[in-house]
Amino acid sequence: MLKELKEQVLWANLALPAQGLVKYTWGNVSAKDMRTGHIIIKPSGVSYDSMKVEDMVVVDRDGKVVEGRYKPSSDTPTHLALYAAFPEIGGIVHTHSSEATAWAQAGRDIPLFGTTHADHFAGAIPCARALTEDEINGEYEKNTGLVMIETIKARGINPLYIPAMLCWSHGAFAWGKTVQEAVMNAGVLEEVAKLARFTRQINPGVQSAADALRDKHFYRKHGENAYYGQDDHT
Amino acid sequence: MLKELKEQVLWANLALPAQGLVKYTWGNVSAKDMRTGHIIIKPSGVSYDSMKVEDMVVVDRDGKVVEGRYKPSSDTPTHLALYAAFPEIGGIVHTHSSEATAWAQAGRDIPLFGTTHADHFAGAIPCARALTEDEINGEYEKNTGLVMIETIKARGINPLYIPAMLCWSHGAFAWGKTVQEAVMNAGVLEEVAKLARFTRQINPGVQSAADALRDKHFYRKHGENAYYGQDDHT
Amino acid sequence: MLKELKEQVLWANLALPAQGLVKYTWGNVSAKDMRTGHIIIKPSGVSYDSMKVEDMVVVDRDGKVVEGRYKPSSDTPTHLALYAAFPEIGGIVHTHSSEATAWAQAGRDIPLFGTTHADHFAGAIPCARALTEDEINGEYEKNTGLVMIETIKARGINPLYIPAMLCWSHGAFAWGKTVQEAVMNAGVLEEVAKLARFTRQINPGVQSAADALRDKHFYRKHGENAYYGQDDHT
Amino acid sequence: MLKELKEQVLWANLALPAQGLVKYTWGNVSAKDMRTGHIIIKPSGVSYDSMKVEDMVVVDRDGKVVEGRYKPSSDTPTHLALYAAFPEIGGIVHTHSSEATAWAQAGRDIPLFGTTHADHFAGAIPCARALTEDEINGEYEKNTGLVMIETIKARGINPLYIPAMLCWSHGAFAWGKTVQEAVMNAGVLEEVAKLARFTRQINPGVQSAADALRDKHFYRKHGENAYYGQDDHT
Repeated sequence: MLKELKEQVLWANLALPAQGLVKYTWGNVSAKDMRTGHIIIKPSGVSYDSMKVEDMVVVDRDGKVVEGRYKPSSDTPTHLALYAAFPEIGGIVHTHSSEATAWAQAGRDIPLFGTTHADHFAGAIPCARALTEDEINGEYEKNTGLVMIETIKARGINPLYIPAMLCWSHGAFAWGKTVQEAVMNAGVLEEVAKLARFTRQINPGVQSAADALRDKHFYRKHGENAYYGQDDHT
Repeated sequence: MLKELKEQVLWANLALPAQGLVKYTWGNVSAKDMRTGHIIIKPSGVSYDSMKVEDMVVVDRDGKVVEGRYKPSSDTPTHLALYAAFPEIGGIVHTHSSEATAWAQAGRDIPLFGTTHADHFAGAIPCARALTEDEINGEYEKNTGLVMIETIKARGINPLYIPAMLCWSHGAFAWGKTVQEAVMNAGVLEEVAKLARFTRQINPGVQSAADALRDKHFYRKHGENAYYGQDDHT
Repeated sequence: MLKELKEQVLWANLALPAQGLVKYTWGNVSAKDMRTGHIIIKPSGVSYDSMKVEDMVVVDRDGKVVEGRYKPSSDTPTHLALYAAFPEIGGIVHTHSSEATAWAQAGRDIPLFGTTHADHFAGAIPCARALTEDEINGEYEKNTGLVMIETIKARGINPLYIPAMLCWSHGAFAWGKTVQEAVMNAGVLEEVAKLARFTRQINPGVQSAADALRDKHFYRKHGENAYYGQDDHT
Repeated sequence: MLKELKEQVLWANLALPAQGLVKYTWGNVSAKDMRTGHIIIKPSGVSYDSMKVEDMVVVDRDGKVVEGRYKPSSDTPTHLALYAAFPEIGGIVHTHSSEATAWAQAGRDIPLFGTTHADHFAGAIPCARALTEDEINGEYEKNTGLVMIETIKARGINPLYIPAMLCWSHGAFAWGKTVQEAVMNAGVLEEVAKLARFTRQINPGVQSAADALRDKHFYRKHGENAYYGQDDHT
């Protein structure tokens, strides 16, 4: 079932440690089959060294295991909440990558300080609010998703234009139309988080880049008027 | 004698430089044979390049060499003190890994700023007090162990729930039920030390993560009610 | 057409990620054929993995494609402006390398703090002023070149003596008489940017190195009285 | 002539970039033949990639080339000055390694903050005073050596107990009884420079480690009463 998508999810899970975005098993990736709405996700706590295509777990939109001998990642309810809220998302990545996680632990949005950021994200990377004690002690993983959704909606964000978010005292989520895009966005997020830390270190009073520069860079690569890349750019 | 445990200790000694936790010969690993109480430890000042299984030194609980042609690590009395105080510890790692050592040199506990930390340690990583001049000039290595034990007891810490400590102006110790766990904890310690440095840099006024979040993450992976990983998780 | 120069441009494009100066496709390199004035430049948005010699695009000094099946880099007008203003430049590199970009995002010149810097650049690395909203919304890429030229001229800089510049909220450009020199200068720029960040961190009140030291180091390697290297040093 | 020592000098020159202590050709190594007093040193500006044993240059104590087809490193007079002042030194390394150079550019001694430092250096790593304009415009490279010698003597330092020094606005020198020791000391210097930067970042008010701790660690590895390593420790 869904062999090709499983291969993509396995590839993505292995790409994260290879790109320095995940240590040990501290990450997980999922993809959504747009036809059935089924989610393919990493099994919980299985070593990357031994992980195989057939170990990927298929769950339905309620999290019920449809196929697979392992339990799905314990963060599955977070992924499901995001997929349910934003049907255009096809892949989600969760990491504790060092630079993004430092901003999450600091409880701060990552400001848009330059065009590296603006080439991929149309604004600051939001840090979702901290969960309440009740939210933590209740359906914690689901609530982790709900506060991200709350933040996206409260700020009027297009989730494909700012396809990443920080979870306070926790780590980062990134997503995209496909799992490959989600991996890419997780990698860019880590780089812009590092750049932002360095930038503030050099100039503590630095302001965000000009809106016109942000829009120029974002929209020369995204949307109808994009002119970056070849004519068949995606 | 104890061939399998010697192999584990050799593996662990080699894993530390391979994982970037040890430069040159600045580290040592030991394991305890739970049956006899004998300790297997790295020989002192021998290059990792040429170290072999049979070079591992076996000492009894008083530090007397039971087997091996080399002198044991000069830090052996520190290891022995920890094993004597906490019988549940089966493996100990000592490193001067950069990020953890910076906190040790700064004389500061590593605060629990997020879930990466809480997934592995149930609270801040303590920095033991500085040794007195008498403690330094006396049985220095043994006293290094005793101040760690003093700190663990004074703070009411379960040493398997916070399986690492900093030694003021010195470096880090990590431990676990097995030597593999000790190596893992040394690696996680280094990462959370780096995350904490970055976090403070981004937000100098940052507070520790909420207790509820700390407990949620620690206990979903440890203890009776753990639900992370597969059903046979360890 | 211009096969050798195309090979150099391809080599340079691949050298940048190999040297850690470029992530993904975030960079571009061009070279000028000194005889015809034609520019060879990277195609836009093509993966480094699959890039071949014949993919390099040849444009004339007005940016018209003379040869090549791909669109040239979207930053081509920036390169053309620099070549037009400074005929002695034979190669240009654009990167978002982390350390240099952090100074660009901070909107700060990189001060000349030591001889590593002075061995390659005769003074501080300038950060060009931010573009106005009109300049951004107009011919953005060309204007990016024009503000660099404005800065070089306003400060009376010899562009071969300070062969690099920062673009505010953006990234770095480096150049040289050849594309190989441009790559080298991009690499040195990244190192001196890192050194300068560390230096300020250690001593926030640090001053620039003495003019005499700057001149000693720069002119023992450059110009008529150079005595560094072998007699045929270049 | 002196083939074995040439091999050591070549090895050392190649070890520096391999260990991340030298970029490009920004470093040089020399060794002294204790019998003749001749110095073997790297040729100036030759690429590490193509450097061969027979390219090493032999000079006498006045810097006159005794053997070799290349010009010696332009820093040769600095090396000669150090060898002349301290006959017990058998090998010298010069680097612009990032962390040590940042302290040099900051014009600050590297304080002794912990045992990693004290295991190898008996005190703070001194930063020599800046050269005067006359010293720069005169015999610059020789004067670079003379201010280091002035610093060592003024502070009453045993150069084999603190076998490294920073040159203001410049870089680092390290030395030892042999060229292998000099390379090792250059590597340790870089690590302690990094640790010190991190330590100050975490605790800006941190004090140097206690003298008793410094002496304990230094003298358990050095001098008559050393007990670290095996009985034949060197």
